[in-house]
Amino acid sequence: MNTPDTLILTATCASRLGTVDVVTRYLCEQGCYVADMQTFDDARAGQFFIRAEFRRPADGQFDETAFRDGFAPRAASFDLQWQLTERKRKPNVVILVSKFDHCLNDLLYRYRTGQLAIEIPAIISNHPDLQRLADWHHIPYYYLPVTADTKAEQEARMWEIINESEAELVVLARYMQVLSPELCDKLAGWAINIHHSLLPGFKGAQPYHQAYAKGVKLVGATAHYINNELDEGPIITQGIQPVDHSHYPEDLVAKGRDVECVTLAKAIQYHIEKRVFMYQGKTVVLGN
Amino acid sequence: MNTPDTLILTATCASRLGTVDVVTRYLCEQGCYVADMQTFDDARAGQFFIRAEFRRPADGQFDETAFRDGFAPRAASFDLQWQLTERKRKPNVVILVSKFDHCLNDLLYRYRTGQLAIEIPAIISNHPDLQRLADWHHIPYYYLPVTADTKAEQEARMWEIINESEAELVVLARYMQVLSPELCDKLAGWAINIHHSLLPGFKGAQPYHQAYAKGVKLVGATAHYINNELDEGPIITQGIQPVDHSHYPEDLVAKGRDVECVTLAKAIQYHIEKRVFMYQGKTVVLGN
Amino acid sequence: MNTPDTLILTATCASRLGTVDVVTRYLCEQGCYVADMQTFDDARAGQFFIRAEFRRPADGQFDETAFRDGFAPRAASFDLQWQLTERKRKPNVVILVSKFDHCLNDLLYRYRTGQLAIEIPAIISNHPDLQRLADWHHIPYYYLPVTADTKAEQEARMWEIINESEAELVVLARYMQVLSPELCDKLAGWAINIHHSLLPGFKGAQPYHQAYAKGVKLVGATAHYINNELDEGPIITQGIQPVDHSHYPEDLVAKGRDVECVTLAKAIQYHIEKRVFMYQGKTVVLGN
Amino acid sequence: MNTPDTLILTATCASRLGTVDVVTRYLCEQGCYVADMQTFDDARAGQFFIRAEFRRPADGQFDETAFRDGFAPRAASFDLQWQLTERKRKPNVVILVSKFDHCLNDLLYRYRTGQLAIEIPAIISNHPDLQRLADWHHIPYYYLPVTADTKAEQEARMWEIINESEAELVVLARYMQVLSPELCDKLAGWAINIHHSLLPGFKGAQPYHQAYAKGVKLVGATAHYINNELDEGPIITQGIQPVDHSHYPEDLVAKGRDVECVTLAKAIQYHIEKRVFMYQGKTVVLGN
Repeated sequence: MNTPDTLILTATCASRLGTVDVVTRYLCEQGCYVADMQTFDDARAGQFFIRAEFRRPADGQFDETAFRDGFAPRAASFDLQWQLTERKRKPNVVILVSKFDHCLNDLLYRYRTGQLAIEIPAIISNHPDLQRLADWHHIPYYYLPVTADTKAEQEARMWEIINESEAELVVLARYMQVLSPELCDKLAGWAINIHHSLLPGFKGAQPYHQAYAKGVKLVGATAHYINNELDEGPIITQGIQPVDHSHYPEDLVAKGRDVECVTLAKAIQYHIEKRVFMYQGKTVVLGN
Repeated sequence: MNTPDTLILTATCASRLGTVDVVTRYLCEQGCYVADMQTFDDARAGQFFIRAEFRRPADGQFDETAFRDGFAPRAASFDLQWQLTERKRKPNVVILVSKFDHCLNDLLYRYRTGQLAIEIPAIISNHPDLQRLADWHHIPYYYLPVTADTKAEQEARMWEIINESEAELVVLARYMQVLSPELCDKLAGWAINIHHSLLPGFKGAQPYHQAYAKGVKLVGATAHYINNELDEGPIITQGIQPVDHSHYPEDLVAKGRDVECVTLAKAIQYHIEKRVFMYQGKTVVLGN
Repeated sequence: MNTPDTLILTATCASRLGTVDVVTRYLCEQGCYVADMQTFDDARAGQFFIRAEFRRPADGQFDETAFRDGFAPRAASFDLQWQLTERKRKPNVVILVSKFDHCLNDLLYRYRTGQLAIEIPAIISNHPDLQRLADWHHIPYYYLPVTADTKAEQEARMWEIINESEAELVVLARYMQVLSPELCDKLAGWAINIHHSLLPGFKGAQPYHQAYAKGVKLVGATAHYINNELDEGPIITQGIQPVDHSHYPEDLVAKGRDVECVTLAKAIQYHIEKRVFMYQGKTVVLGN
Repeated sequence: MNTPDTLILTATCASRLGTVDVVTRYLCEQGCYVADMQTFDDARAGQFFIRAEFRRPADGQFDETAFRDGFAPRAASFDLQWQLTERKRKPNVVILVSKFDHCLNDLLYRYRTGQLAIEIPAIISNHPDLQRLADWHHIPYYYLPVTADTKAEQEARMWEIINESEAELVVLARYMQVLSPELCDKLAGWAINIHHSLLPGFKGAQPYHQAYAKGVKLVGATAHYINNELDEGPIITQGIQPVDHSHYPEDLVAKGRDVECVTLAKAIQYHIEKRVFMYQGKTVVLGN
């Protein structure tokens, strides 16, 4: 996928007359061509969301700082929360893993081929197993084993690495340790977890075993932002696959891998393309 | 779909050597051609399941009673629980509805066109609304309004109708009354309900509203046998459809209709084609 | 689904700076709140598309004629082709059928329950079979049998009925007659056909038989606008379903019904909600 | 997925009384427990297919040669074509690639983790690009550039490698050279290609560009055995994904990767598990 040379303006505010116009008029005045735009107005919550992707003026005259300065007062008059992001800019993403490597392998493939426009400054794991995979991609691998005793200390180290990496996103690619409430708080809104069930069904440990016990005919995966309640964070996207009576738990584990990979990659893509807005414990995903 | 002129032999027993052979050898000896067969052996539970669909001997010599009598002792030696059913035979199905008519409308269409090979001797409802639809299909419509006071009495009447109809299957096509434990017990294994969520997620009332509140990205429907625990019966089949932030609960209700119809019809089809085995709170569905 | 009390403004023009702004600024100036908006800019074709759904001013002061008059000169300066439509307005849709009734039955159900916000002033058929179904819904049924000799005459009559009905859309719900090039020309862009294959695979007659012969593992349905080339018109939406070796052509016919119904209904919904733009033999579908 | 310690007996012959029994009776007599079995009887073609997976006798007494010798005369009396395969045995698979590496990367992951129970003695490519990926997996990589002049010679070398590798399956994992009719003949039935369209739609080069031009709303991938006609070989499995007007050809290329990977891996899995029977230009896939 050719990443277009555009900028992305995202914004949200309380619903009121002029919310679209305050964005689109400014873009027009600045000579910016709107290449792609979606809005959503939550009539129940009274909240407005917009994502506009635009090209710089054709004459090449574009000063991002001036653009921001010019927009700020208008945005302020609407209490807009807004962000401006260059589409081509590759954000730093730190990946957390344990022993399961399918999601990591998939993400590294997409990273290596440019399909996922990210940088990966660090992979952190509580197991040493996936070092070789990281090495092959020339990515620093931090082995931080966790016990009840060392948890606080290791999380502090983890936080340090995340900060030093200037990470904008943390991805839990089947990281099998529950993060402390403190770390969850710090990461709220910028850490994505992949859970191997159709949440809110089968929260907690061994969801495929739960699914087997219940005899469901569909299993799935949920990519969500983490928050302070286990497996309760805002859902970004979900994938499914049909199963039947002949699938034992270990078959479900095996079968679920592809859906987990695709679902997690999709959520990261939405996040870095600035399509996801979080509010009221849910997400709005524009233009997916 | 042309219903073939075959017989269906289904059987289940504890796993042990010879379970397949006891069925297939007898069929061969009787000159019956196996047109379609599936087996499943649950290695965990140690339980064996078979479904064989066969044609009568080409010479036209087939005596069903003799066939049964001949098979009985062999089956007994394996403690087989077995059933023999003519594929073309249309079982009597009693349908329970309330006010939502989409599932009923869909079932009646499939019934009318022969797509679903059933007879419908009675439609029972706690509301009068769908009388006209029943009339058009020349099906007796029993209006049994239910209050706390009349519940026992009306369920007795319902049970009477089901018996008089010689029903082999009861379908709750969005019937919005919870049946009493006594009636559930009587109907266990031969009453199918359609629930508008991916059970076990969103049990109970207003599942689409629950799904909206949670912000899921997929909604679904579950067809299951009823048992004594609300929305906990063995799942037969499930269907899904993607949704997003823009769907309010009433949109989910509207969007879910097609999936509910198709999922319920599919479960009924499996049931009448003798594909479904119930055990350990789950189902085995052969050859779907 | 509650149809909101909104208006829909759709427009398309060559891509150039200000295309979004010319629409959104005017809506803002008129005190109209944008409840839902999508745009698409075809960077290859240099063509811009917008669909904005908006609420009238809160003060109740809205004069549609004045709105149109005010917008016209601005639109003209961009060579905008535009349409303004009341969301709640139910367009007249004439349905053409032959003997297969599954799509008709499905459409009539959606019509009857208000799920599909249309009026159906006429059903036209080359067979008498579906008269009773039309009668039950109190819809005039025109039986126009077609032979090589009477084709021109009957098409003239058909055209007359379409005109007298003030139809805005014609739906070929498994109408098994090929329309003449002249009639196709007249209906181009406002007649939707459902074809039972994943076009462009399996064009022409008996697509399920073709699919069987080829041994495909997926079959599908395609809803498209008709044009002068058989089964070549712009595709609006497509649906699929998995099949396997055990499905004979007649099974595919039976299995395909649900997908055909849902795919056709979806296309009609998109059309009447003004989501579909036709250009270059393809469609843009906004906000589906 | 734990590969069970079973044997797989597959067989096909003309339909006639006793086809199932000749297999199941023998298995029973040999003390072999049938863990999984499916049959298909093609009533149109008059051809019977069976796949039985069975455990060796519990007493540990199993002589494969004696088993084969004992079955041979019975099979002969039915003109059975049959195969006996150890489920755990890993067949040698030679992979052909060009520059696109997504399918190769995916297959190597499944191979490395044991998800796909195969050995890969050789990767052959007409480009040097994927050498490093092969090296990391310790798999010999043969770079055989092809020009019009060298084609015959390189195909001879390729054939040599395939033979020396004792390959039982050849996989064209986006190999962008058309094989000669001679090589196709030699590989018929044991070479699987992945084509990036829903065949028979969009045969030949650049199917995603064809799909874009046509404006389809679904794209897909087809895994099929190669034969002498380009993109016409028997289809094993197909996968799809929805797309819309906003996807340019290069987006379809990017979007299609996941479906191609999963579809190809699934076909290989079916093949090595002996689920696929080829006949009349189509496939029967049992128990997928």
